Amino acid sequence: MTLQEIAEFIGIDCQDEKEITGLNTLLDSNENQLTFLENKKYISDLKNTKAAAVLVTRENASEVPSGAIALVCDEPYLNLAKISKLFAPNVVEIDGEKPLVGGGTKVMPNVYIGKDSVIGSDCTIMAGAYIGDNVKIGNNTIIYPNVTVYRDCTIGNDCIIHAGTVIGSDGFGFANTKDGKYIKIYQNGNVTIGNDVEIGANTTIDRAVFNSTIIENGVRIDNLVHIGHNCKIGRGSILVAQVGLSGSTVLNAYVVMGGQSAAAGHLEIAAFTTIAARGGVTKSITEPKKSWAGFPLFEHRQWLKLQGKISNLLK
Amino acid sequence: MTLQEIAEFIGIDCQDEKEITGLNTLLDSNENQLTFLENKKYISDLKNTKAAAVLVTRENASEVPSGAIALVCDEPYLNLAKISKLFAPNVVEIDGEKPLVGGGTKVMPNVYIGKDSVIGSDCTIMAGAYIGDNVKIGNNTIIYPNVTVYRDCTIGNDCIIHAGTVIGSDGFGFANTKDGKYIKIYQNGNVTIGNDVEIGANTTIDRAVFNSTIIENGVRIDNLVHIGHNCKIGRGSILVAQVGLSGSTVLNAYVVMGGQSAAAGHLEIAAFTTIAARGGVTKSITEPKKSWAGFPLFEHRQWLKLQGKISNLLK
Amino acid sequence: MTLQEIAEFIGIDCQDEKEITGLNTLLDSNENQLTFLENKKYISDLKNTKAAAVLVTRENASEVPSGAIALVCDEPYLNLAKISKLFAPNVVEIDGEKPLVGGGTKVMPNVYIGKDSVIGSDCTIMAGAYIGDNVKIGNNTIIYPNVTVYRDCTIGNDCIIHAGTVIGSDGFGFANTKDGKYIKIYQNGNVTIGNDVEIGANTTIDRAVFNSTIIENGVRIDNLVHIGHNCKIGRGSILVAQVGLSGSTVLNAYVVMGGQSAAAGHLEIAAFTTIAARGGVTKSITEPKKSWAGFPLFEHRQWLKLQGKISNLLK
Repeated sequence: MTLQEIAEFIGIDCQDEKEITGLNTLLDSNENQLTFLENKKYISDLKNTKAAAVLVTRENASEVPSGAIALVCDEPYLNLAKISKLFAPNVVEIDGEKPLVGGGTKVMPNVYIGKDSVIGSDCTIMAGAYIGDNVKIGNNTIIYPNVTVYRDCTIGNDCIIHAGTVIGSDGFGFANTKDGKYIKIYQNGNVTIGNDVEIGANTTIDRAVFNSTIIENGVRIDNLVHIGHNCKIGRGSILVAQVGLSGSTVLNAYVVMGGQSAAAGHLEIAAFTTIAARGGVTKSITEPKKSWAGFPLFEHRQWLKLQGKISNLLK
Repeated sequence: MTLQEIAEFIGIDCQDEKEITGLNTLLDSNENQLTFLENKKYISDLKNTKAAAVLVTRENASEVPSGAIALVCDEPYLNLAKISKLFAPNVVEIDGEKPLVGGGTKVMPNVYIGKDSVIGSDCTIMAGAYIGDNVKIGNNTIIYPNVTVYRDCTIGNDCIIHAGTVIGSDGFGFANTKDGKYIKIYQNGNVTIGNDVEIGANTTIDRAVFNSTIIENGVRIDNLVHIGHNCKIGRGSILVAQVGLSGSTVLNAYVVMGGQSAAAGHLEIAAFTTIAARGGVTKSITEPKKSWAGFPLFEHRQWLKLQGKISNLLK
Repeated sequence: MTLQEIAEFIGIDCQDEKEITGLNTLLDSNENQLTFLENKKYISDLKNTKAAAVLVTRENASEVPSGAIALVCDEPYLNLAKISKLFAPNVVEIDGEKPLVGGGTKVMPNVYIGKDSVIGSDCTIMAGAYIGDNVKIGNNTIIYPNVTVYRDCTIGNDCIIHAGTVIGSDGFGFANTKDGKYIKIYQNGNVTIGNDVEIGANTTIDRAVFNSTIIENGVRIDNLVHIGHNCKIGRGSILVAQVGLSGSTVLNAYVVMGGQSAAAGHLEIAAFTTIAARGGVTKSITEPKKSWAGFPLFEHRQWLKLQGKISNLLK
């Protein structure tokens, strides 16, 4: 789709016929992608973008670097949302190659496998599982019944995905119009899961808005966990039941999150951090190998001490 | 079913042969419905009921209005529970019309659609979805894989229901017998979902005990959210992941509930209220457009100030 | 499998050809089972074990009772994990008897029922349900759509299991290697559910590592509840939505846990205990019939008083 066509779609004028292949953030865009700046906080990222074009307000248009085209508009984020639909793939493909299934892989009845999908050898795909279009699954992986893997996701070798879990559902993203409508930001990224990952039952892992939600090798995720779009769960991390992670939060290697703990979005948690059950992380944790508890969060020992002080209030 | 038959079923005497069509609350009952009074707190509602008959203790029988028949019994709520079974429809209908599916709607393999159901045009019903009997779905709605829609529910136009979500499961309702058994209150209501609603993955929305659990137009619901029976989620409200709402709670328009926040039952939350992540609402919120946090709940700024005071205890 | 073969599998020497039928805890093992001691805290259990053999460090080997064989190794728990794979049944059986289904039971389309399973009379098994191998279901039980019951589990009479719920997924168990790998402890137990149990939608109940996760008669469980492996939920207990129970916790009869409340693992909660919504139990509760709230947990009245004291900090 050309820039001109995109501009026309949102009712602004641009004669450039450059071909745009997708949307991305300011810093991750390549020279064929379109990006946006809504929040002035990211203006230094704007200066460094390699994007072909930027949706930007008049106020910030002068900061668009010389290699990029400014698409000047009143509501860049809302326009990004509108444009995201243009790049959304079909919910279900009709055309495409029949799925490839490797030797020794058992596919039980009532399984759907989409177009262009590839499943390795010695896997078990159990009854009622849905494997969408263009999904790649490695070798020796077990998909339990009634699991749903949305299109374009990838799962590595030696993984176990328990029943009812959903991989690749849309992240929770939309832009507001002035009259109170929400315009969906199509989640055109995916989920990529490494090797030797076990995921419990009825867990949900949302696909990325751009690029990938990433679950690295060796991760262990329990039941009823929610992982928002664009999170990255580092190697060997452990997420106990009912944990919730908001979008774009990064767990470095070997982070442990106790049951019902949670993290706000856009945070980074240092390697070997432990969050106690019910802990609520609202700021990034930069120092590795420490234990935290509570909401608001304290170092675990401080939290225990604080609870003693609080209970003294009853005396 | 006649009043006489119903009375006989619970072992009390009533010769009236009036036809009863269902059960309802004191205030919502019409002249063909049966209601009950257990808790004296609702005695003014009793005086205003339009019901055909009321299950009521001897003590309160004199307050039954003249147009209604008093069915005097020791345990009105328990008897209501027993009677609810008489009005429960079949779990699955054998008879009935084949479902109607509109033009341009794709129904993938391994989908079940029940009797008398009607699906509009340009929908996508993905593999493994279950659409129960007498379900109505509008146009241009996407039902992702392994979604379950229980019988009698309705979903509007332009909705997206993500994988594994359950619409219309039974509300959590039962009456206790004196010897410690729980008698199910059959949940004979439904769920009605408006237009332009998106619901995440593995969320659960319970059907009403009477009437409808209501999700209004434009609502956005994230993953793993629980909505109890008879809740009403007002237009444009946003429920982030892992929110839990107990039964009969009403959110007015444009309420935002952060991740893992919750509300107790039978509350009303004013329009444009924001509840921060983890907030726990235990009383109705009458003033609109305010922000709240914590459990117990405080105004957000007060809660932040309070956390400062609490952490000072460590000094 | 003989002790000799097992020992060889983990690279230690043992010439005994005694047949071992499975793994178990120190106290629950019978004379044909293998057990382990990692934590010195359980050394008195070691002295009382009836197991055929014990994985044990050199340091504790002398405490192994005379009837049992000591399998001396550096990392007993890690070796147990490795050995657990030897006793894991097939994920799906190819051989075995066709399932038996009793009179009056309706099995809808797209249902899978595994080998050697037995379903009683007058049940309804709805579309998309997965009933694994060797599952036993009683009479008059309803399994709603897209429920998954893993192999070897049992469900009693008059039960209702709502849509999307998962019974018998693997407990969250693994041992660490020194180089940061997690070795799965195969969960070779099951889940047993009594009579007259109702379980809500998208709930997860993990199978036991050894023996059974137990849900006793008359229990009521709401939506999105997590029950860890080897829990026991006593007769008539009520678990409201989004409750989380860590592994091996025992609820005695008629315990009520409010919405989003939780308990840590290996605890026991006395009969007729009530935990308020959001309560977090971290120690066993020995006195019955009391009400508790908060996290950390206080007696409910004390918790309310404490919240008053805390809010006074704002004055």
